[in-house]
Amino acid sequence: MIFKDKEAILFTGDSITDAGRKRPIGEGKAEALGNGYVLQIDTLLNVYYPENIYRVINTGVSGNTSRDLVERWQTDVLDLNPDYVVVCIGANDVWRQFDNPHCFYGHIGPQEYRQNLEKMIELTKDKVKGMILMTPYYIEPNKQDLMRKRMDEYGEIVKELARRHNLLCVDLQEEFDQYLKYRYPAYIQWDRVHSGPIGSMLIARAFLRAVGFDRKFI
Amino acid sequence: MIFKDKEAILFTGDSITDAGRKRPIGEGKAEALGNGYVLQIDTLLNVYYPENIYRVINTGVSGNTSRDLVERWQTDVLDLNPDYVVVCIGANDVWRQFDNPHCFYGHIGPQEYRQNLEKMIELTKDKVKGMILMTPYYIEPNKQDLMRKRMDEYGEIVKELARRHNLLCVDLQEEFDQYLKYRYPAYIQWDRVHSGPIGSMLIARAFLRAVGFDRKFI
Amino acid sequence: MIFKDKEAILFTGDSITDAGRKRPIGEGKAEALGNGYVLQIDTLLNVYYPENIYRVINTGVSGNTSRDLVERWQTDVLDLNPDYVVVCIGANDVWRQFDNPHCFYGHIGPQEYRQNLEKMIELTKDKVKGMILMTPYYIEPNKQDLMRKRMDEYGEIVKELARRHNLLCVDLQEEFDQYLKYRYPAYIQWDRVHSGPIGSMLIARAFLRAVGFDRKFI
Amino acid sequence: MIFKDKEAILFTGDSITDAGRKRPIGEGKAEALGNGYVLQIDTLLNVYYPENIYRVINTGVSGNTSRDLVERWQTDVLDLNPDYVVVCIGANDVWRQFDNPHCFYGHIGPQEYRQNLEKMIELTKDKVKGMILMTPYYIEPNKQDLMRKRMDEYGEIVKELARRHNLLCVDLQEEFDQYLKYRYPAYIQWDRVHSGPIGSMLIARAFLRAVGFDRKFI
Amino acid sequence: MIFKDKEAILFTGDSITDAGRKRPIGEGKAEALGNGYVLQIDTLLNVYYPENIYRVINTGVSGNTSRDLVERWQTDVLDLNPDYVVVCIGANDVWRQFDNPHCFYGHIGPQEYRQNLEKMIELTKDKVKGMILMTPYYIEPNKQDLMRKRMDEYGEIVKELARRHNLLCVDLQEEFDQYLKYRYPAYIQWDRVHSGPIGSMLIARAFLRAVGFDRKFI
Amino acid sequence: MIFKDKEAILFTGDSITDAGRKRPIGEGKAEALGNGYVLQIDTLLNVYYPENIYRVINTGVSGNTSRDLVERWQTDVLDLNPDYVVVCIGANDVWRQFDNPHCFYGHIGPQEYRQNLEKMIELTKDKVKGMILMTPYYIEPNKQDLMRKRMDEYGEIVKELARRHNLLCVDLQEEFDQYLKYRYPAYIQWDRVHSGPIGSMLIARAFLRAVGFDRKFI
Amino acid sequence: MIFKDKEAILFTGDSITDAGRKRPIGEGKAEALGNGYVLQIDTLLNVYYPENIYRVINTGVSGNTSRDLVERWQTDVLDLNPDYVVVCIGANDVWRQFDNPHCFYGHIGPQEYRQNLEKMIELTKDKVKGMILMTPYYIEPNKQDLMRKRMDEYGEIVKELARRHNLLCVDLQEEFDQYLKYRYPAYIQWDRVHSGPIGSMLIARAFLRAVGFDRKFI
Amino acid sequence: MIFKDKEAILFTGDSITDAGRKRPIGEGKAEALGNGYVLQIDTLLNVYYPENIYRVINTGVSGNTSRDLVERWQTDVLDLNPDYVVVCIGANDVWRQFDNPHCFYGHIGPQEYRQNLEKMIELTKDKVKGMILMTPYYIEPNKQDLMRKRMDEYGEIVKELARRHNLLCVDLQEEFDQYLKYRYPAYIQWDRVHSGPIGSMLIARAFLRAVGFDRKFI
Repeated sequence: MIFKDKEAILFTGDSITDAGRKRPIGEGKAEALGNGYVLQIDTLLNVYYPENIYRVINTGVSGNTSRDLVERWQTDVLDLNPDYVVVCIGANDVWRQFDNPHCFYGHIGPQEYRQNLEKMIELTKDKVKGMILMTPYYIEPNKQDLMRKRMDEYGEIVKELARRHNLLCVDLQEEFDQYLKYRYPAYIQWDRVHSGPIGSMLIARAFLRAVGFDRKFI
Repeated sequence: MIFKDKEAILFTGDSITDAGRKRPIGEGKAEALGNGYVLQIDTLLNVYYPENIYRVINTGVSGNTSRDLVERWQTDVLDLNPDYVVVCIGANDVWRQFDNPHCFYGHIGPQEYRQNLEKMIELTKDKVKGMILMTPYYIEPNKQDLMRKRMDEYGEIVKELARRHNLLCVDLQEEFDQYLKYRYPAYIQWDRVHSGPIGSMLIARAFLRAVGFDRKFI
Repeated sequence: MIFKDKEAILFTGDSITDAGRKRPIGEGKAEALGNGYVLQIDTLLNVYYPENIYRVINTGVSGNTSRDLVERWQTDVLDLNPDYVVVCIGANDVWRQFDNPHCFYGHIGPQEYRQNLEKMIELTKDKVKGMILMTPYYIEPNKQDLMRKRMDEYGEIVKELARRHNLLCVDLQEEFDQYLKYRYPAYIQWDRVHSGPIGSMLIARAFLRAVGFDRKFI
Repeated sequence: MIFKDKEAILFTGDSITDAGRKRPIGEGKAEALGNGYVLQIDTLLNVYYPENIYRVINTGVSGNTSRDLVERWQTDVLDLNPDYVVVCIGANDVWRQFDNPHCFYGHIGPQEYRQNLEKMIELTKDKVKGMILMTPYYIEPNKQDLMRKRMDEYGEIVKELARRHNLLCVDLQEEFDQYLKYRYPAYIQWDRVHSGPIGSMLIARAFLRAVGFDRKFI
Repeated sequence: MIFKDKEAILFTGDSITDAGRKRPIGEGKAEALGNGYVLQIDTLLNVYYPENIYRVINTGVSGNTSRDLVERWQTDVLDLNPDYVVVCIGANDVWRQFDNPHCFYGHIGPQEYRQNLEKMIELTKDKVKGMILMTPYYIEPNKQDLMRKRMDEYGEIVKELARRHNLLCVDLQEEFDQYLKYRYPAYIQWDRVHSGPIGSMLIARAFLRAVGFDRKFI
Repeated sequence: MIFKDKEAILFTGDSITDAGRKRPIGEGKAEALGNGYVLQIDTLLNVYYPENIYRVINTGVSGNTSRDLVERWQTDVLDLNPDYVVVCIGANDVWRQFDNPHCFYGHIGPQEYRQNLEKMIELTKDKVKGMILMTPYYIEPNKQDLMRKRMDEYGEIVKELARRHNLLCVDLQEEFDQYLKYRYPAYIQWDRVHSGPIGSMLIARAFLRAVGFDRKFI
Repeated sequence: MIFKDKEAILFTGDSITDAGRKRPIGEGKAEALGNGYVLQIDTLLNVYYPENIYRVINTGVSGNTSRDLVERWQTDVLDLNPDYVVVCIGANDVWRQFDNPHCFYGHIGPQEYRQNLEKMIELTKDKVKGMILMTPYYIEPNKQDLMRKRMDEYGEIVKELARRHNLLCVDLQEEFDQYLKYRYPAYIQWDRVHSGPIGSMLIARAFLRAVGFDRKFI
Repeated sequence: MIFKDKEAILFTGDSITDAGRKRPIGEGKAEALGNGYVLQIDTLLNVYYPENIYRVINTGVSGNTSRDLVERWQTDVLDLNPDYVVVCIGANDVWRQFDNPHCFYGHIGPQEYRQNLEKMIELTKDKVKGMILMTPYYIEPNKQDLMRKRMDEYGEIVKELARRHNLLCVDLQEEFDQYLKYRYPAYIQWDRVHSGPIGSMLIARAFLRAVGFDRKFI
């Protein structure tokens, strides 16, 4: 497990991260973290590493794209001095191209997406003990689906940037793909984007695996 | 156009029909009809056949399956003495099998679906001037998608029953399939089930075509 | 049809245009456009021209007169860089003279109305591909009615300015007059000013006719 | 003045009478009487006849037609043992024919209207010291207007029944007609049916004149 | 009657004047004037002088003392350019001495009250056609009651200032005293300060008498 | 102190007792007792007699007269098997005669008031360890005030019945009279009927004195 | 793992189980299960046993004691035909003795508690594949604390009954005790009774261990 | 009694003081003081010292620590010119260390707590007639409880500073300790921190004892 006692782990991103967290900063008693994967991770860290105190912070904002995230990166990430930064962004960058194709100005193409992520990495890398990227995902098993294909492009960018900058990377699409062998997408979430309790646990599990969770579950 | 002046046309079904209609009966000034396809049909009939007065009634109920509809058929359809009855049911019969697979008791299989529809037809056929069936639909272009395949089975049942009982039938799935050549499902509706303004107009247009709408649009 | 793929069409005016649109800008998924004639036009363009993507924007504000519209013209029209601008204003300019005769400062007489419209035209004409004027209207068939007479004066100003500046013009009063041969005003709207679903469809149809809608309805 | 100390005067009818009164019985401190003409009458009786205590009761119900009123006549009028009964009904009997022409079952034609009123008179006449009829009205000066013409038919029925049964009658249409020489209908009320503060005072004044108000105003 | 066609009459003061008026300025359709004496005056002027249009404005603010009123006099009175200004202030100046004796800083003694009123008169006198003072009042018939005695002191100041500056003055306390010969205070209002419908009509009547109302009531 | 460990003391009456208590029975954690004198008594018993557990119950109902109380005496008093019953009723019996003089049917004259109290006493006396009567009161120092005079009549009835039936009696009017030597009524409560925090403490103190409170306050 | 594909597992108890579940039956999409330990168990079963579909049902009711649970056992447990029944009751049986010591009638002593549990077991044992008891708990590490001691008595009863009837038993107090070696009670929950996210996960883990959860966590 | 007629006594602190007071300043009629110990003190001063008028002010703010209090000391204490200042702070300084151990930045250690208090004392001492310190408390009888031990440390600091600066000091922990001999903490408050009605009376009594309350309770 890479996290040490008293370290601060900041999660940021869009509604998947936000999940109804407290404003302006999602930190403190449980409800402050929203009811999504951040809460699940915090709960599991508490239950399985009770000898440590981790400071879990959530600054996800519903509806955010990578462009929005860059704009608030200074105040919502760097100013909070986290030891670790976890980013999960891109769902809206892609979704808006499909559900609001006529709002061109809100579409973040792959090139801008890559630049935004690189900007975040550059601003952060040297100021933290670790930065972790999570790929965006789409709960759709059909890889020929247009939006799924597009999301996969963005996931590739995340994975490539993680490799290049030597960052931990969590491939959430892969998690969901495994799970979709057993369940229809609407079981997890009608809109195929938000995570619901099952998806949140899938994300939490993948994240904890990546950071070296090493306790026995039962 | 099959409808004559002063005739009452009753629409019933699930949330696609309901669309926020007034309780207990959706009838009267526009807002009483909800904001879905029933309102669109009423509006178009008013605009294009102003020499006639049609009594449009909406008794759709959100969440209903064909089983629920049979149970309230007497009070919500027959007791209102319509001249025409229009039914659009089945979305929840199928959807529940995919988003609530564990609630077995709420799943309406194809056999029960057929029986429920036949029951409605038998109870109604001789009491009205016409009964019109609309197929359920799923806003998903991939015909290999599991839920789409299932929905197609139910659509086939509707079409077959319409043929056997010599009823007008509106193939809504076909309407949406044509439209999906141009747009991604999330543009119409995130959950791929409800119709939104565009889907409501597609349904209204298909319905009006089926009943012999014969006015020039412009 | 004058509109081309990816063009932005901005509608502005008073509550007839507003119809509950999203703030600050009415743009995006359907509910952002309110539930009036702008939504009807957007829906019909989507259904009948699926090969094109139009960016429909609504910046109507309930209660606005032409004076209010001039004041916010820069931010709510020009700054949004539309390809086409559609204006429907004047109902409150006239109405206030009749329902609030004692609030003199809020009355926009014909002379100021003409100046306000000319101001809008001058500011806009050279910056857009087209500007379309829609006359104000009053759902009252009695041409001797005092408010109807007054509204007709304002409608004449609109038509004259359209001719002089060579702009497309939609005579909404004429649309409603045709329809009032069949229906009593209270059927459309109790206050004889707002449009309701039927009036919204009448406006949408007249607008689409003016811009060269050329598809078969059924 | 026909009312004596401690007598109970009951007003009933539709929304014009109701005006937001308390449920189930509108009686007691001022707010219990709603904010319409009944409150104005109660206030003026209190101010000008302070030596008497009148028990003013309001059982108007918004949306009621004469048919509804007959149905609740026993509980909402007779059971309350008033000394005087004042009825103002008919607006909705007529209005529904124009704003909901397709809801045939809710239309009360002149014949049923007459029968309903006669029923009320017969049930009441011998049980009270006086029964007072007020004609329905429409705030529309154009006597050729279709709804105005219809309303005048109903007003004639009220006046004729009052004559035949020797009841006091208040011609509210005449009051509004006099006032409309000076003001446009929308100044009083956008829908031309409800009374607003000015209309309520016109009704109160006409009523008090009819019952013999005999004090100096200033 | 001193008011002429198209003149603006501004009423200001505390909650007795405010009565729920619209913000920021109480002007326009009836509900904008609140539901107190200002509405009654506006209604009676409309009904009895229909040949004139009066612009009635209400800028009363609940809880105000004469000190508060001086502070907002420029924006809430002078900037609105009224032809006539009517002031009814002082109830809270006195009341706070009795219901909040410990909040010394909010007590306006007779000397400051006089100064505040003189300030208002000086600022206004030469800018309007007329200024009318209404005395504060207390709905308590016992002249030995401590708060009644105090209120009478303030009423004397109003009357004296009106004499000195030659302004119209309405003695509201006298109006209520006459009425209290017939009714117990709690009938009008539990707190003996606010006016209720009956008190509002008493104030309206006294005001109209003072300004020369000259029409027959019935 | 007459109350022993584990005894149940039930308070009932009107809004002075009710004070926002929980429904259907006011019993349990503090908020269940409302925020009036019952809570004060419960708090003081807890603080000063911590060695005992008293079961304090509140079944006061806002707006109740003695007539209402008799009607619900079985369910709201006797069925709860209290050891002691405390009654404070009569404020509304009197008040309604002054603030709703025209609602004759709601007036409880002295004779009925006496009968109602006697009925309660008879039904209760033999079933409890003690019954305690508290006089109604009016926060008005002027004994010539009409409502104060009337309230004194009712207070006399309470005291006389207490004497005759040998019940403890708390003269609340006397408490308030003593306090009114120092404070103006509006300081305690604008309507002179409800008790506010100060009045609640006055009532609690008088009650505790009557039942033999014997601890040092500080 | 004892649960098989398609089996129904019903959880019932008090607010710890309820956790905001849907009414009348907590079953279906995730939010129907509340946000407590039942949701956690359902989520973990879904994630780790995706090849099975379990029907998880929640009929906990906030504030319930074992007495309440017996009363609704037929409708809320047996009528739903579960394969497994899980009961967690007793927190309120004990808590009320400490936070409402004066409400004697609501106290469930150890004897009644045992009888209520036995009643549930007898009614159920032969109708299900398994019944699982969970002990009540108190998040207080001090075993001399009065309420903790009392809770331990009730926990012993549960364990003894489980042994005697040969039922699976989950010792929740033991779970919390282990965890309290690392954390102060207020970290988990201010009131030391409800579970919060951490407590819910502790309960879920203990439950899953007892039923033979056999998958690798990561 | 140290307070004299017309003196202003300001209470400040955290939620125990705040108790729902009015914003921005808690002063005026009773509800302005919240429903905690400040209201109790105000009520008792009014009832027992009716010959004096005390100006009681409440500027407590829920959630405040001593650090927050220092920051708003100028505006919320000194600017209001009180004669006496009463401070009760520290509960959150300690609580956050136990219920939010991971939010390190919000923990106020004993050293900072002492400095904050000294800062308040220095800023205030010479500007008021008296400053009174109340110790923080924890409603937990077990002195080995970790949070209780910590709270005792802070209480010692308060007492030591009071001695050193010669200020009145109220040992609230001692009050609660005496009371806890008779009652379990959950009887007073589930969270063991807020005071509830009983705790508020205990605080009020201890405070009044300290300032020389010298009247007979009964």
